Amino acid sequence: MSVLEGIQGPEDVKALSRGELDTLAEEIRTFLVEEVSRTGGHLGPNLGVVELTMAIHRVFDSPRDAVVFDTGHQSYVHKLLTGRHDFSGLRTQGGLSGYPSRSESEHDIVESSHASSSLSWAHGIAAGRAVAGERDRHTVAVIGDGALTGGMAWEAINNIAAERDLPLVIIVNDNERSYAPTRGGLADHLATLRTTRGYERFLDWGKHTLNRTPVVGGAMYETLHGVKKGIKDIVAPQGLFEDLGLKYVGPVDGHDVAALEAALRRARAYGGPVLVHAITQKGRGYDHAMNHVGDQFHAVGVINPETGLPLEISGRSWTDEFSDALVEIGEERDDVVAITAAMMIPVGLEAFSERFPERTFDVGIAEQHATTMAAGLAYAGLHPVVAIYATFLNRAFDQLLMDCALHRAGVTFVLDRSGITGPDGASHHGMWDMSIAGIVPGLRLAAPRDGQQIPVALRAAVDVSDGPTVIRFPKGSVGEAIEAVRTVDGVDILAEPDDGEVDLLLVAVGAMVAPSLTVAEKLGAEGLRVRVVDPVWALPVPDAVVELARSAGRVAVVEDNSVSGGVGTHVSRALCDTGIHAPVDLFGLPRDFLDHGSRGQVLDRVGLTPDAISARLLDVLR
Amino acid sequence: MSVLEGIQGPEDVKALSRGELDTLAEEIRTFLVEEVSRTGGHLGPNLGVVELTMAIHRVFDSPRDAVVFDTGHQSYVHKLLTGRHDFSGLRTQGGLSGYPSRSESEHDIVESSHASSSLSWAHGIAAGRAVAGERDRHTVAVIGDGALTGGMAWEAINNIAAERDLPLVIIVNDNERSYAPTRGGLADHLATLRTTRGYERFLDWGKHTLNRTPVVGGAMYETLHGVKKGIKDIVAPQGLFEDLGLKYVGPVDGHDVAALEAALRRARAYGGPVLVHAITQKGRGYDHAMNHVGDQFHAVGVINPETGLPLEISGRSWTDEFSDALVEIGEERDDVVAITAAMMIPVGLEAFSERFPERTFDVGIAEQHATTMAAGLAYAGLHPVVAIYATFLNRAFDQLLMDCALHRAGVTFVLDRSGITGPDGASHHGMWDMSIAGIVPGLRLAAPRDGQQIPVALRAAVDVSDGPTVIRFPKGSVGEAIEAVRTVDGVDILAEPDDGEVDLLLVAVGAMVAPSLTVAEKLGAEGLRVRVVDPVWALPVPDAVVELARSAGRVAVVEDNSVSGGVGTHVSRALCDTGIHAPVDLFGLPRDFLDHGSRGQVLDRVGLTPDAISARLLDVLR
Repeated sequence: MSVLEGIQGPEDVKALSRGELDTLAEEIRTFLVEEVSRTGGHLGPNLGVVELTMAIHRVFDSPRDAVVFDTGHQSYVHKLLTGRHDFSGLRTQGGLSGYPSRSESEHDIVESSHASSSLSWAHGIAAGRAVAGERDRHTVAVIGDGALTGGMAWEAINNIAAERDLPLVIIVNDNERSYAPTRGGLADHLATLRTTRGYERFLDWGKHTLNRTPVVGGAMYETLHGVKKGIKDIVAPQGLFEDLGLKYVGPVDGHDVAALEAALRRARAYGGPVLVHAITQKGRGYDHAMNHVGDQFHAVGVINPETGLPLEISGRSWTDEFSDALVEIGEERDDVVAITAAMMIPVGLEAFSERFPERTFDVGIAEQHATTMAAGLAYAGLHPVVAIYATFLNRAFDQLLMDCALHRAGVTFVLDRSGITGPDGASHHGMWDMSIAGIVPGLRLAAPRDGQQIPVALRAAVDVSDGPTVIRFPKGSVGEAIEAVRTVDGVDILAEPDDGEVDLLLVAVGAMVAPSLTVAEKLGAEGLRVRVVDPVWALPVPDAVVELARSAGRVAVVEDNSVSGGVGTHVSRALCDTGIHAPVDLFGLPRDFLDHGSRGQVLDRVGLTPDAISARLLDVLR
Repeated sequence: MSVLEGIQGPEDVKALSRGELDTLAEEIRTFLVEEVSRTGGHLGPNLGVVELTMAIHRVFDSPRDAVVFDTGHQSYVHKLLTGRHDFSGLRTQGGLSGYPSRSESEHDIVESSHASSSLSWAHGIAAGRAVAGERDRHTVAVIGDGALTGGMAWEAINNIAAERDLPLVIIVNDNERSYAPTRGGLADHLATLRTTRGYERFLDWGKHTLNRTPVVGGAMYETLHGVKKGIKDIVAPQGLFEDLGLKYVGPVDGHDVAALEAALRRARAYGGPVLVHAITQKGRGYDHAMNHVGDQFHAVGVINPETGLPLEISGRSWTDEFSDALVEIGEERDDVVAITAAMMIPVGLEAFSERFPERTFDVGIAEQHATTMAAGLAYAGLHPVVAIYATFLNRAFDQLLMDCALHRAGVTFVLDRSGITGPDGASHHGMWDMSIAGIVPGLRLAAPRDGQQIPVALRAAVDVSDGPTVIRFPKGSVGEAIEAVRTVDGVDILAEPDDGEVDLLLVAVGAMVAPSLTVAEKLGAEGLRVRVVDPVWALPVPDAVVELARSAGRVAVVEDNSVSGGVGTHVSRALCDTGIHAPVDLFGLPRDFLDHGSRGQVLDRVGLTPDAISARLLDVLR
């Protein structure tokens, strides 16, 4: 039996000898490379935290002590050490989640994969236990240097630093990158801390220099050392965290279990909040990951473990189409600039940034800043394109509303990974973006139905200078181009009965256009006359959609956003406000959180397949 | 003619002599006390920035240089110096806005009053001008120490610090408080900076101490001084901002125009981003403000300028009702804790915090942290009550969704200042909270119709342990209690016709219940049979509302939230989904930004008065 096979919980990790720990680390790496190659997943980040996670479970006592992982994709090792060894179904329906999951284990706490939240969770848990009289229970937060650039983390550190006696340990997993290398003042400062510990180095310097001064050197050193406390206060030889009042321990080699344990034990014993700075290498121990130029295999699809090369070759993606279109527009218009929030490659901005480096801004994990900075860029006469994942727009709702919309700033938001994203689970689906966009005055939203429509929409969007625009599209490969039969005031009619009588007006949004055409075929085969329209600019609802609804017996709206506040509710209201009382059926994602699974599986689960939609419609139409 | 009367723009301020500047400062203070006493407004903050604003307009060249005020209520002096002297209508309909306003002046840029955004605006403007080849135009952001605790500010500083050559000046207006004293690690650090500048003090100490060592002391000092650069790198005697790579100038006496000018000129000449740390006193020069124990007259209603006492005595407020109810619940349940975001007094938490200091958390201007910390507190077994202004919930939408709702955390949000708040204008109205709450799975929302209903709703909310709840109520005084005629499955029926036949079901939400009863009376006088119901828990829409709609010819929903995504859209959909096709009329705030004015004026402007509502309903009912 391998060491790993014998690990059923943290107590088993605590019982291991130094030699066994080394073996365990090696076994875990082999396991991760083999398993994650088969299923896809966050390989690089987990290879980087093998020793760190082992040390945490040796020093702390989960679940009595709370261990919170920021951006929980770094929790695979934690899953193994808490007895979850069956990775065969990782991130697939019915299998292990790619993130912590309370339903899987009492050792898991935070399920969301939105970054920078762990310190606020930890503060709440630690403060709550203090109120409940349980100050002997420790709280540990593991946060990457990238996630520290997010504003939430700052808000939390500012508060935690003022809590003099909470038993709370912040472990900064510093691999100098999130998805991509971390940028900004914090990154520079971490680099300084990595190579020097000011005060200790100063004392060393003093000892060395002053002792060379024969007469009084030794005495001087003693003097300096004697007034240590005084000097410390005066010269403030402290890092940023100590400036804020947070005890700092480090830097520690994040791949040395013994050193990590020593640091964590020191932190645990301190009696107040401590920040432990661990230096790790993303992709550690797997050459193909460590040498990967882009992101150290941050997240991989199914790969060949021997070569590190992807086994799935997919076609051209929605992201590719956007990437090309933006470069083309950038060539023509030098006022178009691009902003990303630590996601240059995944959102397709790499080509633009290489062609126009001075017109590209990567602000780190900071969607709030990206959005308001965009309003500032627009004020300066430029047209910013903010490219982020749909689910992360949630982080910038207030800035979208107050900084962009209220100030009528011409800013284009390009939302990748909208709709069902699949294996990443509840917090990665882009299913709320149209709901929040629909609230924002003056905002126009387009959901291109195919790759050809992306440059068309993008060109229209960057021409809007009096308010925000949103373009949203899903993850994955684009399908065939879908030509319009005809266009009515900007609304594309994609299919319609020959004689003009219409039983059902099917309003299809973005990626749901293709399945909606299948629905129309199925209903057509049953003798129903269906007109399928793509509003192109779905919000606000185009007048032409309302007019077309006038002559239809019934209206259905199909979208891959939550039905709460989605395009359907706006179509529904627009009809009602115009005095059209045709029944409107809404097909969208339920007002619920949706577990991981493939995109197809999730859509099937919620009844957003052509079969399910046509069955429901047949039911009501007959 | 006074000096102030002669100021029509920044060029006039630049032309003044030192003596005239002193006179101007005095005249401005007298003007502000007299005028703001008459109209109400943000008196304290503006008295604190008189000299600072003068210095800015002497050193920089607005509007060619951009001056951005964080939380623009500190822009009254700026208004005066840019030629706006008629304060008679300040914050009233048709009069000057209480914030910067682009329609008032080319010197105004950011209109929103949500804190912590100025640095992101400034970064965008400065970066945009750099892209446009206008690096000679400077950008200035004025931000309070309180606003620096907000996460957005951190995201921006992290980015600005990495911009080595942007001409951007951040002025920290440090008065040790936002609304209330600033708390946390940052506040402690600012206090340190206020009293010591590490490196310079270290050198002074070295000179002093070493020179007392007769033989080599002088030489030692020279040695120390000679390796200045080396020591500086080693001992890192830097403050937090310099740790991040941001040039720091200060601290500067914020009431000494000459010193401020010198610091700002130095910052202007630096060629890269600089932070100028100015120490000011909120309420400076007006004893009644400076001695005010609560908030230095942060915002005042109409007051007697001689005594500083309010002239308007209003009755018991919605906030008072909440405040008392929470203390009462706190006495009974020791698991109930309270969180505020730098708004202890305005949201009514002062009494609770005095009674239960260890169960009250003021996290600073940090709604994101407040919300996720609450999820952590709930995980630790407590029930947190997060009390904030309705408009600031926007800042925490992602955390409400991902941290509270996804994790089914029993957290109660109490939203004060919902609906139309009046004189503060577009960014202070609480008109989006029900729209975003309606998107969140598992969230329940109550809008108490009167003061009596607040404790009832609050008690019910803190009993919910499997998801977030929201209680929202408006600014101002509560009216008479409104008794229910009868209750159907939790839905209160407030008025109904005698015979059971119903022409109109009027669904009234929260503060709109009272005017809706007037509507019903008016319609009743016209012979129409109206049933008025208060859903009590408005979201999700109670089944009983749907059932009551079944027997009504028409349904109307009245709320003081945006009609986009408000309760009305949910009622509308619930009926449609149940196959009830009665027309639904929505009465709410338009999908638009609403300028300042009194609550009554704004409601009148948007047609939310009993007269306007009943006229529209009469129209459709006949």
